[in-house]
Parts: sequence; structure tokens; C-alpha cells
Amino acid sequence: MIQKVVMIGAGNLATQLSLALHENGIEILQVYSRTVESAKALAEKLNCKYTISVKEIEKNADLYVFALSDKALQPILDGLPVPIGKVVHTAGSIPVDIFENYTKIYGVFYPLQTFSKERKVDFSDIPICIESNNMEFQENLIALAKRISKSVHLISSDQRKQLHLAAVFTCNFTNHMYCIGQKLLEEKDVDFELLKPLILETAQKALQLNPLSAQTGPAVRFDEEIMSSHEKALENTPDFKKLYSFVSESIYKMHKSK
Amino acid sequence: MIQKVVMIGAGNLATQLSLALHENGIEILQVYSRTVESAKALAEKLNCKYTISVKEIEKNADLYVFALSDKALQPILDGLPVPIGKVVHTAGSIPVDIFENYTKIYGVFYPLQTFSKERKVDFSDIPICIESNNMEFQENLIALAKRISKSVHLISSDQRKQLHLAAVFTCNFTNHMYCIGQKLLEEKDVDFELLKPLILETAQKALQLNPLSAQTGPAVRFDEEIMSSHEKALENTPDFKKLYSFVSESIYKMHKSK
Repeated sequence: MIQKVVMIGAGNLATQLSLALHENGIEILQVYSRTVESAKALAEKLNCKYTISVKEIEKNADLYVFALSDKALQPILDGLPVPIGKVVHTAGSIPVDIFENYTKIYGVFYPLQTFSKERKVDFSDIPICIESNNMEFQENLIALAKRISKSVHLISSDQRKQLHLAAVFTCNFTNHMYCIGQKLLEEKDVDFELLKPLILETAQKALQLNPLSAQTGPAVRFDEEIMSSHEKALENTPDFKKLYSFVSESIYKMHKSK
Repeated sequence: MIQKVVMIGAGNLATQLSLALHENGIEILQVYSRTVESAKALAEKLNCKYTISVKEIEKNADLYVFALSDKALQPILDGLPVPIGKVVHTAGSIPVDIFENYTKIYGVFYPLQTFSKERKVDFSDIPICIESNNMEFQENLIALAKRISKSVHLISSDQRKQLHLAAVFTCNFTNHMYCIGQKLLEEKDVDFELLKPLILETAQKALQLNPLSAQTGPAVRFDEEIMSSHEKALENTPDFKKLYSFVSESIYKMHKSK
């Protein structure tokens, strides 16, 4: 069983995940981060030790969770004393076997969600994608994931990479559409509050109906008059105009071929 | 006061709006639609008359609501007996003065939301944008809107057009991102259910935090390694690949300049 965890990283995901584990009876032994500021901030929330030196990472943990940006993972692995015990990373697009030259038993613990330090999330609905090179360890990871979430899944590295890509579209790109909406309203002195019920309903509708059949608006109707009037309104923001044309075309094509 | 309404149109918006008015004590006298099928379907829900002939539209209504696609509005106006009484349309991008050659008192009653026939919406949070050429009628429209919604706003034609454009980005384009996410998961046999908590959280987060500061993912970090691996994964769907590059670039540019 996994009881004692060292958290490598203190960013958005590391913060939210370690808090969720802590609240569900898992002991976070230590937090490692590259800066004292972030290591200390998270360690204080968890009431645990912290370090900024890889050499001082605790040796006796049941699990080392690497919750780092993809770029940071490899250099930190290279700096670690070997062997390092049982490890997981939390990344969408990194194959599980990145660990194979560093330790014997390893896996992935990927919570599919968007995390910000300042917004607490309820882990119980977050899908956690598990993968491992070792059957027993995999079972332990599943048990650990089930302590914090009702939605635990065995997902291969190949599937996980695709999930991450799909998440970029449905989360980051969607959020960018919200940003553009906000900028457009600012131009005409209209409160962004007016868009909020629409943002929420669009999401809730996609949870109930198939998003393909739920599509509305000028592009799916191919209403050229509105589309060209919208493009004209975007003359001063050529990037938004290009994006408008391109996404409208993509909507129309997808619906024509459905 | 507005008590008796004729609904011109029987599409998604006409259906949801007339049901909301009906449930809040407004009498829908009649439904007009171009096809018997849709006119009858809505009239049955409202327990009222219907017609498919513009000549047979009731003469004694307090208000005629034109809830039609933008393309359909002009030809129907041209076919109507003149004068037609007090009218509103429900469109985002049509100026209020489209009515000026047809009647004396007119306005706009624009509920800013996405509507589907098969999904009932709670009108109470939906922003309703009001505009009129007549002060007394405008007050009556505000009173009517307040019967169904807590969020009633005076919005000019110019602002309303911008709201509609912003809504296309935050609703239709966002929904298209969901569609792409779904298609990507289908390719690797991963259940779309796994994306649903992310879709909901992305929306809820934008209601609480500023979407610009809430942005996460590879583009805002400018993580070239992940972005190029994602683009490679999209080789077989060149449209999605182009969209990926383009939106990523737009995210990066917006955040660099914030």
C-alpha cells in the first residue's frame, strides 16, 4: 500500500493533488521544488518538510510523484541519486518508460483536469489515468487514485497522449475563445458578465447532448451574410478575423461530412 | 402592458422563449411557421392556434415576436399585411431599424443563450437585451423580460452585434473544440466521458477567474516540444493541425502582450 509520498514539484497540479491526497489520509513526507518560495508555500499548506536540493529528497517514501512541467522532468531525473524507489509522473504527453533507466518500478498518475493554485477543485469527479510497468504497483496506484476520485481508468501512453491533445482543444483553446469574447466586449464597453450564462450552458449542453448535434450559430447554418458582417467587424483585429474564418470553415466542413 | 403574443417562428429559440413566456402568464395567441410540422409541434406544447399563412396571422396581439433565422426575417416582413402592430425580433446581428418601413413601434428582445429544441433551459439567468425606438414600449418590453429573467439590459444595436460576435466565439467555436476533442478520442477508442469534467471545470473557472489569467497548457507556456509532438499527432487531420498551430500562436501572442 502507498502511505508516504514525496511530492516533486509545487506548481498548480502538485498543489491541488498533494492537498487532495493529504485530506484523504496520505502522508506527504516532503515537497521538493526548485525555489524556496514555492516549496515552502506548499509545505506550509501540508504541514510537512520541504527541500530545494535533489540530494536531500527523503529516501523512505512509498511513492515519488513527479508533478512538474514536461521540460523540468528530465533534468531533475538526471540529478537524482539512483535508485529512487517507486515513481510516477503526472504528465499527459510523456510516455511511462521515461523512467526505465532510473528505477525498476514506475508508472503514471495523470489527473485529467485544469488546475490553478487559486482555485480549489473537487477531485472526486476528476478522471485519473493510471499506467504502470508492474502489475502490483499498478494495483496500488489504482487504490491510491480511488481514495481521491470515483473515476479511475487504465489508459496506455498512446491513449493518454491523445487525451492530452483533446484536452488542449477542449480546455485551453476553449478558454482562449472566452478570452477573445472578453476582449471583443471590452471594445464596446459591454460587461463580460453577460457572456457567463452562455459559457456555462454551452459546457452543460455538451455534457448532455452530443456536441456535434448541439452545434448552433451562423457557421453550421452557413449564414454567409452574418459571417461576412462578423468578419467585417473584426477588421481591426486581423488575428481574430483569421481565426473566425478558419473555425467557421472547420465547423461547416465537419457538419457537412457528419 | 404586454399580455397577448404571436410567435413568428417555431425553431429552437421560438420554442424555448414561447414556453418560458407561457409558463409566466403570457398568452401565446398563435404560432406562425413556414411548415405545418413545426408550427403544429410548438402550438401543441402551448395549447394555442397555429398558421402557415402570413395572411392569417392574428391582428389583435399586443406583441409580434419574430424569432426567425436572419435570412427568413426580411421575406416574411415583406409578405405581411401592413401595419402589423408592435413588433420585436430576437436576433443578435440585425439592427432594430429593420422594422422602420413596416410599423411605427418596434424593438429588440434578444436572449443571449444557445437554444436547442431538445434541451429545456432556465430563462431566469439568461441576459435579455432590450432596445426600442419608443420609450413606453421599451418599458413594456423590460417588464415582459423581467417576467422570465433576472438579467435584463438595455443594449444598443451596435453593442448587441458585438455581443453576438463574442457569443459565436465563446459558444459555437467552443462547442467546435468539444467536437474536435470527441473526434480525437474516437480515433484512439477513448470514451468522451473522460473529457466532461474538464469541459465543465474550464467553464466554471472562467466564471470565477479572469479567463486570461486562468489560461493553462502548452501554448501559454510556449512548450515547443509538446506543441510539435501534438502537431505530429495531427498529421492525418490537416485541418485540426492547422487550427492547433493557429490557436496556439494566438494564445501565446495574447499572453505575451497582456
